[in-house]
Amino acid sequence: MENTSSKKNIVQELDPLFKPKSIAIIGASQKDLSIGNVIIKNLLSYGYKGKIYPINPSMPEIRGIKAYPTIFDVPDEIDLAHVIIPSKFVPQIIEDCGKKNIKAVIINSAGFSEMGEEGMALQNEFLAIAKKYGIRIFGPNCQGIINTDPELKAYCDFTFTFPEPGGASIVALSGGVGAFIMQSLFDLEIGMSLYASNGNACDVSIPEIIEYYGEDEATKAIILYTEGLSNPKAFMKVAASVTKKKPILAMKSGRTEEGAKAAASHTGSLAGVDISTELIFEKTGILPFNNEEEMCQAAMAFSTQPIPKGNRVGVITNTGGPAVIATDELVSAGLHLSPLSERAKGKLQQTLLPEATIGNPIDVVATGGGVHFRSALDVLMEEDSIDSIFVNFVTAPFTDTDEVARNIVEVSQLKKKPIICNFMTNLSLERFQVTAKILKDGGVPCYSFPTTAAKALGALYKYSLAKNREIGLPKAYTEIDIKEAKSIIELAKLEGNTYMTSDKVFQLLSVYGLPIADWALVNNIPEAIAAAKKIGYPVVVKAESPELVHKSDKGGVAINIKNAEELQSTIEKMKSGIGIKDMKFLVQKFLIGGKELIAGISKKEGLGHLIMFGLGGIYVEVLKDVIFKIAPVTELEANEMLSSIKASKLLDGVRGQLGINKSKVTDIIQRLSKLISDFPIVEEMDLNPILAIGDDVFCVDARIKIN
Amino acid sequence: MENTSSKKNIVQELDPLFKPKSIAIIGASQKDLSIGNVIIKNLLSYGYKGKIYPINPSMPEIRGIKAYPTIFDVPDEIDLAHVIIPSKFVPQIIEDCGKKNIKAVIINSAGFSEMGEEGMALQNEFLAIAKKYGIRIFGPNCQGIINTDPELKAYCDFTFTFPEPGGASIVALSGGVGAFIMQSLFDLEIGMSLYASNGNACDVSIPEIIEYYGEDEATKAIILYTEGLSNPKAFMKVAASVTKKKPILAMKSGRTEEGAKAAASHTGSLAGVDISTELIFEKTGILPFNNEEEMCQAAMAFSTQPIPKGNRVGVITNTGGPAVIATDELVSAGLHLSPLSERAKGKLQQTLLPEATIGNPIDVVATGGGVHFRSALDVLMEEDSIDSIFVNFVTAPFTDTDEVARNIVEVSQLKKKPIICNFMTNLSLERFQVTAKILKDGGVPCYSFPTTAAKALGALYKYSLAKNREIGLPKAYTEIDIKEAKSIIELAKLEGNTYMTSDKVFQLLSVYGLPIADWALVNNIPEAIAAAKKIGYPVVVKAESPELVHKSDKGGVAINIKNAEELQSTIEKMKSGIGIKDMKFLVQKFLIGGKELIAGISKKEGLGHLIMFGLGGIYVEVLKDVIFKIAPVTELEANEMLSSIKASKLLDGVRGQLGINKSKVTDIIQRLSKLISDFPIVEEMDLNPILAIGDDVFCVDARIKIN
Repeated sequence: MENTSSKKNIVQELDPLFKPKSIAIIGASQKDLSIGNVIIKNLLSYGYKGKIYPINPSMPEIRGIKAYPTIFDVPDEIDLAHVIIPSKFVPQIIEDCGKKNIKAVIINSAGFSEMGEEGMALQNEFLAIAKKYGIRIFGPNCQGIINTDPELKAYCDFTFTFPEPGGASIVALSGGVGAFIMQSLFDLEIGMSLYASNGNACDVSIPEIIEYYGEDEATKAIILYTEGLSNPKAFMKVAASVTKKKPILAMKSGRTEEGAKAAASHTGSLAGVDISTELIFEKTGILPFNNEEEMCQAAMAFSTQPIPKGNRVGVITNTGGPAVIATDELVSAGLHLSPLSERAKGKLQQTLLPEATIGNPIDVVATGGGVHFRSALDVLMEEDSIDSIFVNFVTAPFTDTDEVARNIVEVSQLKKKPIICNFMTNLSLERFQVTAKILKDGGVPCYSFPTTAAKALGALYKYSLAKNREIGLPKAYTEIDIKEAKSIIELAKLEGNTYMTSDKVFQLLSVYGLPIADWALVNNIPEAIAAAKKIGYPVVVKAESPELVHKSDKGGVAINIKNAEELQSTIEKMKSGIGIKDMKFLVQKFLIGGKELIAGISKKEGLGHLIMFGLGGIYVEVLKDVIFKIAPVTELEANEMLSSIKASKLLDGVRGQLGINKSKVTDIIQRLSKLISDFPIVEEMDLNPILAIGDDVFCVDARIKIN
Repeated sequence: MENTSSKKNIVQELDPLFKPKSIAIIGASQKDLSIGNVIIKNLLSYGYKGKIYPINPSMPEIRGIKAYPTIFDVPDEIDLAHVIIPSKFVPQIIEDCGKKNIKAVIINSAGFSEMGEEGMALQNEFLAIAKKYGIRIFGPNCQGIINTDPELKAYCDFTFTFPEPGGASIVALSGGVGAFIMQSLFDLEIGMSLYASNGNACDVSIPEIIEYYGEDEATKAIILYTEGLSNPKAFMKVAASVTKKKPILAMKSGRTEEGAKAAASHTGSLAGVDISTELIFEKTGILPFNNEEEMCQAAMAFSTQPIPKGNRVGVITNTGGPAVIATDELVSAGLHLSPLSERAKGKLQQTLLPEATIGNPIDVVATGGGVHFRSALDVLMEEDSIDSIFVNFVTAPFTDTDEVARNIVEVSQLKKKPIICNFMTNLSLERFQVTAKILKDGGVPCYSFPTTAAKALGALYKYSLAKNREIGLPKAYTEIDIKEAKSIIELAKLEGNTYMTSDKVFQLLSVYGLPIADWALVNNIPEAIAAAKKIGYPVVVKAESPELVHKSDKGGVAINIKNAEELQSTIEKMKSGIGIKDMKFLVQKFLIGGKELIAGISKKEGLGHLIMFGLGGIYVEVLKDVIFKIAPVTELEANEMLSSIKASKLLDGVRGQLGINKSKVTDIIQRLSKLISDFPIVEEMDLNPILAIGDDVFCVDARIKIN
């Protein structure tokens, strides 16, 4: 029920913005090239079907349209207002908009949060007024929106590209990037449904826009550009649900330190490379791109083609080299050129030219015509072992290329399996323009390079994986005594230390069912000797005191203690060497051998926590071989963490060594995740090392930072 | 001297092919779309300045040109002949060409080595005739050549793209790929000098063509597509010399197993992924690409821009987001956005708009005009700390974009530092077509995406590195007694084993100054005990017999033997357990601790040998953390091998461990390289493990396979 009402809400909320029946331009201007003029010009040029009300205190008309001194002078209802006036006047105008019952406002004007404190105050001022009246604010300091619906044609923007209607929708934080992506789709002849670039994004947010696009029937694929997410939780919720319906192709820039610095300097946000956005993309099934050209090229495939059921691709070519290039890239993208059935080969033998190569790729050779391409296409359409088709088509001068194109189109329009075409031709020749038009009009996505085309098919396949990936729910672990855990943490808080003391750490781990090597906290040597006897030698001893931070540097850790004498002398040495009064000592079983693993938790403001897993020691220090996921982590995700570290083979055992007990490790990861869900007060937690010995796994040392 | 004469030769040899004053088309045809007709049509359409002689037994003229029954009927000299007749007639025609004193022949006809044995025999037949007459053969089964020189305009090809003259030259094994690369350059408005696609390449080879391009003044950059190199040594020699003069951009496909299979199926070559081509590219300074679109985009930058002196780039932008994207990619390509000097900042403060961001990137803001761009450009041109300039230029509707373009062109034409432009505009608007033309005519490379533009600048920078990389000569190691080494190897050959016995292996390593843990080969237990005493316990014992292949699997290796009793019982056990008569035993110092390294040699047919280095144990088995280089290896290259393994930090020491003695390890690599230069008979050699203990390095075990 909640879902339904939320859907209803987002449509109701944002319809006045994206489907305005009437638009006022507050700050309409007669000055050519001014924003208050360009927007009216764009609405007119694009053929906006609603009413336009230029608002200008002194002009009777602008661009031939009757203008009004104020919005109150407009006799009709106004759905949407553009505001293009100096920032200091904006709060008053929003008050007026409220009185006029305007439901949505695009504030193009700059001079708000991007300009520092004073601007922020102004922004907060008009936002409070907007909330009072229930006005949704888009911007400020933004471009606007475009809706290409032929029944509406709302071009509420000052950009210069006039897109055709179609299946791609764009949402971009940066107007500059949004505009060139729109231009690129236009150049690639990919139709667009909606466009939004919301600048400071003080109210209408990117998650809301994505949710709205999710409900827009015309939108087949969403293209997102961002430099960081201001409300990651809201974003995740929306994204996870929308990607089940349609693909979101996204690019997050600022992936290098210098890039993040450049982003900070133009948006005023905090600098610093952040891995969380890519983790969010992964968790929610968003397709990530580091190359905006590739993203636009992929959008072309998504806008017309069905999603493949699997990774098995059939390649048809009429020239050798480009098929080799395509194969390399297809395979790199995780696709597989599966062998043809005997039946298929038989059919091809009957129908193709004698010089043809029957296999996968199928080479119909340059002299192959429409009938040969058609036969290969039909065979691949019929093969159960083929999920998608890649066509390399060079317009050989001695071929009826139009006939080839018509056959590709006919098969493509069955929409049974995606078809991607690498179309190698000279478009300055009229003859081949005709061929290109047949393919284009038939909805066949055409590329000029085999690698580019293969990458696009790779993106379709990646979306099929993301769409079908069900991560499930986190395990409940109902047996865990949360009350007891709470009392441990509250005691720790009372102690006032940033880092919990070792005994509390181990107690908490015990409550959460995390396997720990036997331990005891003791006050003196006799207690230590008694404890060690119980635990069994060899043992480890660690000095414990809130004042003692870098234990091992200060001689506060001793390993492999084999008997009582050694234990006694070790503790004596620690007492005199460290020189802190009232030290306690942690005595713990010393474990030898096994594989060192690490797991941990770190807090990410606004997002929650990240869970980390990796191989310990030099693997983490030198090879940075660790994996992060956003908490909570499900069993599937925990398994993915183990299998996606670079040295994952080590977990299975190599060089005659046995593998580790992986299910015990994934259980630890999930219990960590449960702990952090129950107690978000934990800021940081490290289990380092976790030792996997034989079939057992022990958390040997742990550190917990609370807030 | 040799070099000069070789240059002279290649020009003399291939001028008749690339600069023919007269061309005969043997197999000229009246049939539209036939190759024998299309080539004449192309020569005419392209405006060939020489004489065309169609050869046809029955036609008096073809396409309005007088035809001759045979080449002997042609009254004048013929430089070049196209041959387009059934393969079986080709040998006779080559004989005729020889008699007519024709210097070069392009055989377009197929039906030779690509068709199996019979075709191969025909190919050898005509080739022998060609050699007799000194005719250079291009092809067979090929497209041909194009020379765009306005004084010549030789279009000896049946492709459909008519390139403008310019600085890029193409050589492609696959005609299909060559043609679409040519088309792509045409689409990008990059001029071309020479084109060659030589099919079966039975005579005129890719190395020769590259050498010729190296001498062609009009060629500024060479684009190479290949699926493997048939004569890697010749290729390396030419490539290393040409890349010092001009860049070679290259793509080698078949980088995946499936891709290699596809390549094999269309060229008839051997299947299998081969790493040697990429090593050859690296060693000779060729710029490798996995993406042909990126390669063409990079060619655009090379065709007009100077090579940067270093990696320091200044970014100018008039929009925020695209600068962030560009920065990410520039940094990923190894470029550095260096900070501006105070002087530069002062100048910008005086000249830019108040909203501008003064830093690197310099944001002149969307309202910034020509004067602001110019000021930023001038400042970056003057800065000593800037080697190249990246411009993000969106054609904001409220700006005089032509004025901006003119300023970019003026500064670019100083040719002091490369300028790359990401030009974001709508080319369907006439206004911006004008701006684009100003940039284009001014020789400014323009891209439509920030990442694409940044990759192109990255390629310029990578070439500056490759061009300036002097690997030096391999060390001579004159003290090595090659005679002694030779006698060891000859003895081993006499023994007739594929793998040399351990004693000979160690002897050979000793001669080459490779550090070995103390060892002795013994026949029985008393000898073993005596040897161990001399060496010092603990020791390792290995059973030695030509019949014993997988020693350790069969209990033939025992480590950490601490005394004579243990040694005796171990050897007794080996004797009874393995059950081979006349076994010998290798006793060697057992070394404990240290870092395991490996180094090795493997033979590559046609190329010579590869030298390998890596970290031993799981690093090589699980992480595949090894580096290969082509022998011989210089000191610089040996150092690069150590620094380019993923875990190279381990060699410097981490976690309080000391680093290893790297110069001793690079010395081992170079001595290995020397060994293989002296004795190419060695097929395979492994030093595994090499132990780095403290400041020492020992080769502990080694295996040598001879032929």
